[in-house]
Amino acid sequence: MAKTFMDDNFLLESETARYLFGLIKEEPIYDYHCHLIPSQIAENKKMADLGDAWLSGDHYKWRMMRTMGIEEKYITGDTPSYEKYISWARTVENLIGNPLYHWTHLELQRYFGIHEPLTEKSAPAIWEKANDLLQKPELSVKGILNKFKIYAVGTTDDPVDSLEHHKAISDGTAPIGKIETKVIPSFRPDKALNINQAGFVDYITALSKASGITIKSSDDVLAALENRLDFFIAHGCRASDHALESTPFAIAPNSEIDATFNNAMSGKPVSDGDAEYYKTKILAGLAKLYARHGIVMQLHLSSIRNLNPRIFSQLGPDTGIDAVHDLQQSKNLSAFLGLIEKETTLPKTILYSLNPKDYYPMGTIMGAFQGAGCMGKIQLGSAWWFCDHRDGMEEQMRILGNLGMLPAFIGMLTDSRSFLSYSRHEYFRRIMCNLIGGWVENGEYPCNLQKLESIVRDISFGNVKRYFN
Amino acid sequence: MAKTFMDDNFLLESETARYLFGLIKEEPIYDYHCHLIPSQIAENKKMADLGDAWLSGDHYKWRMMRTMGIEEKYITGDTPSYEKYISWARTVENLIGNPLYHWTHLELQRYFGIHEPLTEKSAPAIWEKANDLLQKPELSVKGILNKFKIYAVGTTDDPVDSLEHHKAISDGTAPIGKIETKVIPSFRPDKALNINQAGFVDYITALSKASGITIKSSDDVLAALENRLDFFIAHGCRASDHALESTPFAIAPNSEIDATFNNAMSGKPVSDGDAEYYKTKILAGLAKLYARHGIVMQLHLSSIRNLNPRIFSQLGPDTGIDAVHDLQQSKNLSAFLGLIEKETTLPKTILYSLNPKDYYPMGTIMGAFQGAGCMGKIQLGSAWWFCDHRDGMEEQMRILGNLGMLPAFIGMLTDSRSFLSYSRHEYFRRIMCNLIGGWVENGEYPCNLQKLESIVRDISFGNVKRYFN
Amino acid sequence: MAKTFMDDNFLLESETARYLFGLIKEEPIYDYHCHLIPSQIAENKKMADLGDAWLSGDHYKWRMMRTMGIEEKYITGDTPSYEKYISWARTVENLIGNPLYHWTHLELQRYFGIHEPLTEKSAPAIWEKANDLLQKPELSVKGILNKFKIYAVGTTDDPVDSLEHHKAISDGTAPIGKIETKVIPSFRPDKALNINQAGFVDYITALSKASGITIKSSDDVLAALENRLDFFIAHGCRASDHALESTPFAIAPNSEIDATFNNAMSGKPVSDGDAEYYKTKILAGLAKLYARHGIVMQLHLSSIRNLNPRIFSQLGPDTGIDAVHDLQQSKNLSAFLGLIEKETTLPKTILYSLNPKDYYPMGTIMGAFQGAGCMGKIQLGSAWWFCDHRDGMEEQMRILGNLGMLPAFIGMLTDSRSFLSYSRHEYFRRIMCNLIGGWVENGEYPCNLQKLESIVRDISFGNVKRYFN
Repeated sequence: MAKTFMDDNFLLESETARYLFGLIKEEPIYDYHCHLIPSQIAENKKMADLGDAWLSGDHYKWRMMRTMGIEEKYITGDTPSYEKYISWARTVENLIGNPLYHWTHLELQRYFGIHEPLTEKSAPAIWEKANDLLQKPELSVKGILNKFKIYAVGTTDDPVDSLEHHKAISDGTAPIGKIETKVIPSFRPDKALNINQAGFVDYITALSKASGITIKSSDDVLAALENRLDFFIAHGCRASDHALESTPFAIAPNSEIDATFNNAMSGKPVSDGDAEYYKTKILAGLAKLYARHGIVMQLHLSSIRNLNPRIFSQLGPDTGIDAVHDLQQSKNLSAFLGLIEKETTLPKTILYSLNPKDYYPMGTIMGAFQGAGCMGKIQLGSAWWFCDHRDGMEEQMRILGNLGMLPAFIGMLTDSRSFLSYSRHEYFRRIMCNLIGGWVENGEYPCNLQKLESIVRDISFGNVKRYFN
Repeated sequence: MAKTFMDDNFLLESETARYLFGLIKEEPIYDYHCHLIPSQIAENKKMADLGDAWLSGDHYKWRMMRTMGIEEKYITGDTPSYEKYISWARTVENLIGNPLYHWTHLELQRYFGIHEPLTEKSAPAIWEKANDLLQKPELSVKGILNKFKIYAVGTTDDPVDSLEHHKAISDGTAPIGKIETKVIPSFRPDKALNINQAGFVDYITALSKASGITIKSSDDVLAALENRLDFFIAHGCRASDHALESTPFAIAPNSEIDATFNNAMSGKPVSDGDAEYYKTKILAGLAKLYARHGIVMQLHLSSIRNLNPRIFSQLGPDTGIDAVHDLQQSKNLSAFLGLIEKETTLPKTILYSLNPKDYYPMGTIMGAFQGAGCMGKIQLGSAWWFCDHRDGMEEQMRILGNLGMLPAFIGMLTDSRSFLSYSRHEYFRRIMCNLIGGWVENGEYPCNLQKLESIVRDISFGNVKRYFN
Repeated sequence: MAKTFMDDNFLLESETARYLFGLIKEEPIYDYHCHLIPSQIAENKKMADLGDAWLSGDHYKWRMMRTMGIEEKYITGDTPSYEKYISWARTVENLIGNPLYHWTHLELQRYFGIHEPLTEKSAPAIWEKANDLLQKPELSVKGILNKFKIYAVGTTDDPVDSLEHHKAISDGTAPIGKIETKVIPSFRPDKALNINQAGFVDYITALSKASGITIKSSDDVLAALENRLDFFIAHGCRASDHALESTPFAIAPNSEIDATFNNAMSGKPVSDGDAEYYKTKILAGLAKLYARHGIVMQLHLSSIRNLNPRIFSQLGPDTGIDAVHDLQQSKNLSAFLGLIEKETTLPKTILYSLNPKDYYPMGTIMGAFQGAGCMGKIQLGSAWWFCDHRDGMEEQMRILGNLGMLPAFIGMLTDSRSFLSYSRHEYFRRIMCNLIGGWVENGEYPCNLQKLESIVRDISFGNVKRYFN
């Protein structure tokens, strides 16, 4: 019999799935990788209206509105918020089979108690109701963090960042006041690696200033980054993060790398090959620091960015013009991990790819580096960005199950810029319980309820809490 | 309970799926990309017998007959048609899980009213019955075009083609007489790009003759192609088509490209690298022409051809010796699209790949170039050739749904050389309705019948008609 | 309704699937590619205990134990067997969704009659019961080969091997005595190809000694290999095997190849490019020999090995530190096959890849080389190693069905080092019958029970017996 649209049993196709989800739907959330803006947390931001909440920075939605043929001014232009919202409502109706359809309606249901589908017709009434609620303290940042039991949030921060907002939040001196949620910085030193991108010289200058270390060589870069990593750790940092098309792996002597560094600092162009030597050294140096300090290393691979020059020139990066890359990953990734493992031992590492074709290589490479007394030390990262949907999450978990150990998985993160994304953890948990419940009901795993409960609890919260301790 | 073999509810696994399919099964067909031979349409060809209809040019079937171990003379040799047909019948029985099994039986059912499975045993009676019917006007080309409500057919034509048959068909002066179906040429200038393949010099000579333009440079090539494109447009052309292993992207100054062109014209060998410069210029030049004239650009990527030298030397190209390539596509494809978008604006573009691994890259790259007031301006092409089966179509639509906007999809085409392929549109529509119906019954999309009807109608016919206006 | 854990209907989700499996569950087994040690067969080895049986050489299990965070001494160290076994039992509970879960319990059920799930708690009693049974003749090698109706076993052997154990087994003079099972050597000359790997000089010396041929050139290498192939054939060899990251394809004149060979023999380093010329010549030469002698050529592609230098230095190869590679395969594989087909005709060939992304390229490339009177002459090898699980086998068979002819498939092999792996053939047969039964019940293939029986029988045993005659 047909199921009701997105009711309590949404995506739960078996009795066991429903039972398991019931056990863990109220588990806390450790959102260990996101792009929330710390100042907005500190100030306990209230969203102006549903247009602001949904469309002010969400490049996922912008892409879909462009696909509808909607003019850019109703997407990112200075059109009034309501008109953008109506354009989005029109778009939503066509998102059958797209995660944005489910995300949107989970947000309406869980944040606003609205169970009606969003259409151009229902949009005005939903606008009124949601905007009223947005003004209430329950939907301030603080209200949201409480409501969804957010145990911790891992923001994404540049090494030169002052972390003033993180400090004020943890001190309880920020406008938001005392909160239960830990707001933890993550160390993302991409700009220190991107020696052949514009802005490198300025960045190194800023890094020098932030660290108080004069930077004249690649070793100085590492020293300055270590200084900043220490500072981050003092402010609660548990994880680093790197965005890479593919893993650098090319070894050169220091003298050669420093010649490249000096060229870059004097504004000379750096070839891709020379950049690779420099990046390998810096990333390897950082990996060893992470291992020494117990910092998790996150590698985000296989994205290709800023593809549309017209939009890029108007709107800049992170505006819906990125895509899935298709580079080879096995050789360099395994060689890099081998290099670190040989010289010291790998830090805890999470391997993400934007291209599902990398799940088999990554899911097996990681198996070669597990161990050292840590359960699930190397992780296959949660289905990310363009893969973050029902099919993508199920594929990632099935492959992880087949190649590795699903019960060691640290699970979901939002990777989001929005405070309305926490219901995506529920989406993940439903899919995860449905997969596991389905196996049990198909006779593929015993119906040992105690063990099953511990598995779904661990994937929801237990593992991630332990992993980042 | 087990379903009957290929009955009315074939592939329709839910009530909603059956309801939706019922709404659109009689929609007209816009077969926008095929390889029908215009002269055969013009002459209102009748197929001699079922062996001729099925085996005279169908390399899909030849491959399977070779896999059976059948001798080549019973496949492409001068054996009597009936013996080939019997060999094929023997082969069919082993095609469980292969689209040819369903295609064959849909053809028997819809064209001939034969509902019995084809086996070596049933073959003689089917031969008799089908051959009788093939002699009736209902199964002449004209009869078939009427029966399947073929609104338009997009043939695939060389720029030097005279389009005499297209003209005669549209004038109503061809033997077939006046027909409802529009027979539209598509502009496929592969030979003008393949500067390092045999026959280039002859082709440029023919292009010069057809266009009346003396060709002494790469700019002259573009001028001649523009001349022919104008001619094609005057004969109703709405689309171009390019077969490419991967997208060329390498920029060189004109002088260098023309030196390469002159080398090629004097019979000197051209390196792959030099060819890439030339191809990039010509393809980019054409893309801008397409944009200016409102012509759809189709890119067919990731095939590798003519692999078996023994068969190739006997039978030539398009004889069942091609395969799926596995090149990297993201970098060049996105750079090429970016180049056009920067200088002007992209034409409507359809991206096909023969390798399903490219769906994620393509399905996200296209999102970066949508817009400009056109719904679904950039399309992820229908599952093509080796991907054109139940699993492949579902995969293509699921990924398109997850990454883009399925209701903007222009849907199915046959890509076929045969007049018996129109039932493949039904096959596609069943799979599409089953996917969408399944989502609805699983509570993933509201059961809004009006909206669902408009979605399935648009994917069946509305979108494609609008897209090619 | 939920199914009981791994009961008689395990993985059989339809009536037709159950019916078909019932027909073939007792079919004999032709395990045409495995890594059993011939001397262990010859001596009729008895396994000391369940720890020895499961953990003495199984790198699949080692990886999972490392993922649990278990210390290496409890995995590969000299800890008592029972402690390793208990560590494994703890690990097993977390292998939901992993093939090792099913393999382990199929082994407990079929070899030991134990139907209880293995957990840390049930482990001690299972240890007692299983160890008792391991001492009985029914679980000696001879007992196992009889019990599972092993028609033939294809071991994997180096060309320099004396094949003394194969001879003793076939003569009936080995301790195991007369057995029904054919134990057949396979010819795996990897070391003769790996000109740029350590040990090449020693290997050529050994090859020279084994063949009695002085080796001074690449032609001599081929002559020596032919000599050994003749010897293997005289001992029943039906197949060769090659482990390759990707197919070599680079043509150079003999003089150049021999210069490279001489460099290698005098200990000079050989570049990857020069190695490729040599490998292409040797592999092509062997392929022609295989064709002439009716030997099946197996190509195992897309693995990347020995990734963890710490473990490699302690334990050496085949210790759980390998992974899935992601190289491009289409171009070289098709060019190599084309080269052989042009000069002579291809031998029967089985194409395996460790990366499922290669199934589409391979599954279509093989279609271009089928024929010559042999049904299924070129095979898409069974889902291998990291792909050898429920999802992987179904994916391999669905793709084979869509691109080729599933009823021509030669089916399952264990690729195993363990005598406890024969129940994996049952696992495969269940999945195969479930797939086919599902198609029938979904109306996608007629319910012609006679034809269906012949299909599932052929895939289980008939095809492989015919293929290797």
